[in-house]
Amino acid sequence: MGKNLTSRAEDYSKWYNELVVKADLAENSAVRGCMVIKPYGYAIWEKMQAELDRMFKETGHQNAYFPLFVPKSLFEAEEKNAEGFAKECAVVTHYRLENDPDNVGKLRVDPKAKLEEELVVRPTSEVIIWNTYKNWIQSYRDLPILINQWANVVRWEMRTRLFLRTAEFLWQEGHTAHATKEEAVKEAELMNDIYAEFAEQFMAIPVIKGVKTESERFAGAVETYCIEALMQDGKALQAGTSHFLGQNFAKAFDVKYANKEGTLDYVWATSWGVSTRLMGALIMTHSDDRGLVLPPNLAPYQVIFVPIYKSEEQLKAISEKVSEFMQQLRAQGISCKYDDRTTHRPGAKFAQHELQGVPLRIAIGPKDLENNTVELARRDTLTKEIIQMEDITGISKELLSDIQETLYKKALTFRDTHITEVDNFQDFKDLLETKTGFISAHWDGTPETEQKIKELTKATIRCIPMDNKKENGSCVYSGKPSNQRVLFAKAY
Amino acid sequence: MGKNLTSRAEDYSKWYNELVVKADLAENSAVRGCMVIKPYGYAIWEKMQAELDRMFKETGHQNAYFPLFVPKSLFEAEEKNAEGFAKECAVVTHYRLENDPDNVGKLRVDPKAKLEEELVVRPTSEVIIWNTYKNWIQSYRDLPILINQWANVVRWEMRTRLFLRTAEFLWQEGHTAHATKEEAVKEAELMNDIYAEFAEQFMAIPVIKGVKTESERFAGAVETYCIEALMQDGKALQAGTSHFLGQNFAKAFDVKYANKEGTLDYVWATSWGVSTRLMGALIMTHSDDRGLVLPPNLAPYQVIFVPIYKSEEQLKAISEKVSEFMQQLRAQGISCKYDDRTTHRPGAKFAQHELQGVPLRIAIGPKDLENNTVELARRDTLTKEIIQMEDITGISKELLSDIQETLYKKALTFRDTHITEVDNFQDFKDLLETKTGFISAHWDGTPETEQKIKELTKATIRCIPMDNKKENGSCVYSGKPSNQRVLFAKAY
Repeated sequence: MGKNLTSRAEDYSKWYNELVVKADLAENSAVRGCMVIKPYGYAIWEKMQAELDRMFKETGHQNAYFPLFVPKSLFEAEEKNAEGFAKECAVVTHYRLENDPDNVGKLRVDPKAKLEEELVVRPTSEVIIWNTYKNWIQSYRDLPILINQWANVVRWEMRTRLFLRTAEFLWQEGHTAHATKEEAVKEAELMNDIYAEFAEQFMAIPVIKGVKTESERFAGAVETYCIEALMQDGKALQAGTSHFLGQNFAKAFDVKYANKEGTLDYVWATSWGVSTRLMGALIMTHSDDRGLVLPPNLAPYQVIFVPIYKSEEQLKAISEKVSEFMQQLRAQGISCKYDDRTTHRPGAKFAQHELQGVPLRIAIGPKDLENNTVELARRDTLTKEIIQMEDITGISKELLSDIQETLYKKALTFRDTHITEVDNFQDFKDLLETKTGFISAHWDGTPETEQKIKELTKATIRCIPMDNKKENGSCVYSGKPSNQRVLFAKAY
Repeated sequence: MGKNLTSRAEDYSKWYNELVVKADLAENSAVRGCMVIKPYGYAIWEKMQAELDRMFKETGHQNAYFPLFVPKSLFEAEEKNAEGFAKECAVVTHYRLENDPDNVGKLRVDPKAKLEEELVVRPTSEVIIWNTYKNWIQSYRDLPILINQWANVVRWEMRTRLFLRTAEFLWQEGHTAHATKEEAVKEAELMNDIYAEFAEQFMAIPVIKGVKTESERFAGAVETYCIEALMQDGKALQAGTSHFLGQNFAKAFDVKYANKEGTLDYVWATSWGVSTRLMGALIMTHSDDRGLVLPPNLAPYQVIFVPIYKSEEQLKAISEKVSEFMQQLRAQGISCKYDDRTTHRPGAKFAQHELQGVPLRIAIGPKDLENNTVELARRDTLTKEIIQMEDITGISKELLSDIQETLYKKALTFRDTHITEVDNFQDFKDLLETKTGFISAHWDGTPETEQKIKELTKATIRCIPMDNKKENGSCVYSGKPSNQRVLFAKAY
């Protein structure tokens, strides 16, 4: 198990791929670029969903569901959006298979069942949703519309990696409609704040809130807000985005509302989303060479009990105790599981739970029964201690909270020590060769410079931080004047 | 609102379609046969999901996620399953759109981006899942596998109706793998029992548990268990199915396991599902000519508060009271909402909440404030009463429980008075002309007779009830000997 995992130092990318598969999170499927999310991985995603869904509802959003398919004529309607997604979309052209006359037992597309209009499998749902909102919005009374959708989307990526970049992925996409620009901008910022809060409080991942440059913006957006995280290999990962869409989609679908005075105006829009990509961020931020390390707030179970026994009688006595402990833990809102499989030895169980990142492990043997003790192991620090049975609930509660905090602080320290201010292009290049992370540097504000830097170094502008202080300087590449630093990094 | 709804007596089908749209549950989209599930409808579906998900987990199932697409070669693998779904499936053939050179601003399928192998959008996931299970199962230690998936599926239906039959629909599909036939059969029966329990306790819909005849079985199943409900128009609706798949999929994908003795055998399978079709059943079982009637266990909010006021001051005083009441109700686990929209008058609000089936409505006006009373209206019986403010929580709790029970009993009485034993074919035909419902009749057990009866009367065998008593008789159509009655009906 753990010992078979490639180390991060040896090959970070290989370590990640192996870990995802060995920890039973996900695996590749028979379909190019599509993954199977296995029960343990899906249980983490469900925890993420539950928290995000709660946060969305607490801020007035409701869930709904819109069609999987986008007719080509709708897909074309918003030019930039279409341009952004046309190159990598799955297209349904037929609605029937028939027996292949040349190949017994095989099927082929029925040429008589060709669709009049092709259907694109949604890569994102702005167009299908705005085509619907058109019928829902007449006056200011119908606004705002605050809707979220949990769905699957498809983007025909050529190079895929489990969770990080897959042809099909699961996500949520919020789509809101507003009477004023101010309200829409506020909504886009609010949702980006919520993503940041979720990342920090639940995923234990510190993030930098910022806005994207024009060339990194969502296709069809006026402004893209984002949260950027830093992985252990020093590469950045965009963990969530929230877009102020201006009136672009309202204009494309002619969605106007009458204000209190009866004047017609186009509606203002936002959209925002996070996806199963967050799983990748979670894995890469905290895990180590022995396997997954999960923040307690998102662990499918926070405490695992493992019995150590030689006789049936011992197992029975241990099981009775464990049952009591689990009841006590659950009463305190702590999730736990008893690994009483008879098909596996304790050593194999320890290795598995370590690999799967269960925050706390409690082992109980015959000697513990005599002494009223248990052995408690902490996944993040790999430390063990013998504690009294009566202290299990109290200590577990304390440790879980401490693990959550420790993971966050550790990631924060790593992130903060990997932001380097750089003032000339040689240093910029040198730094990317030696120590990766965010580079804070002046930029002249042109897409040309941004593109040139990307070509020369593979680093892109991850964001212009929200809390950026103004500072006069000169562009790290062109030397032209600049009034603020932006964050560069190589990115996932 | 309510008064604009076509009555059931006038045109049941039109009543249903209007109700779904007017109560803001769902609407047709720009995509042929695909619906938009609106927030109010989706909130009901979410309640259904939450309860079912809990029931699945309590019986040891875990959620996972499998790809949306099925490569054609996998789709073909289980012959009957392929045959059953090939005629109505969406097929992805290309992965890119390009600018149409003949048509500025338009896109077309890029002929250079044709897939080597076509992908079918999943109509159901047996094949993609069994192709995956193949790699997960080596020995008895790997069994059972008890997995459920919440997903969207696509079946290219030609005639669609909101919720009842749509090209894309949402559902859950359980897929389990077992070492023995007995265990798999038990699982299939258990899940059908769970569906029945859910239908009766949460949806307040009485159902008949049974097995399907061979010709009504799921494509690829050895036995299909089902729950059948009766709608107010006397037509039956299949509300859920659970399939014992034998070793069909294991054989198609060569999935074998080694038992304790090391002998290899094919794995036994089940699959089971319910879909957004349940929404149709819910609507058609309880609703009336004034709109939706929702069982409290699935209502997005069980109590709606409506303020009646002339001045801002009155509204403020009412709002303060309502805020207290809502806190009290929520403490008792009762969900509620305050309709303090200033854009709508009380009459319009009353009509809307009636149309949307909110179980209890509480109106508070200035006079109520003086008298410490409120007006409480019950949606199912359309009765009103004045009650003391201090009794709101107690009475609401009692009434919600009573409404849930009353709806079930009413539906049960209707169902039970619409099951008629018939012993000759003339009566069978006459009955279908006059009073619809289930017909309990002898059948000779042949698909030919079943088919003939269907052609002549449009009635099909809904199921052979699980608790059927053996009884000698002769087939209602052929006169051949039969040892049990089966249930016929016209069906959705």
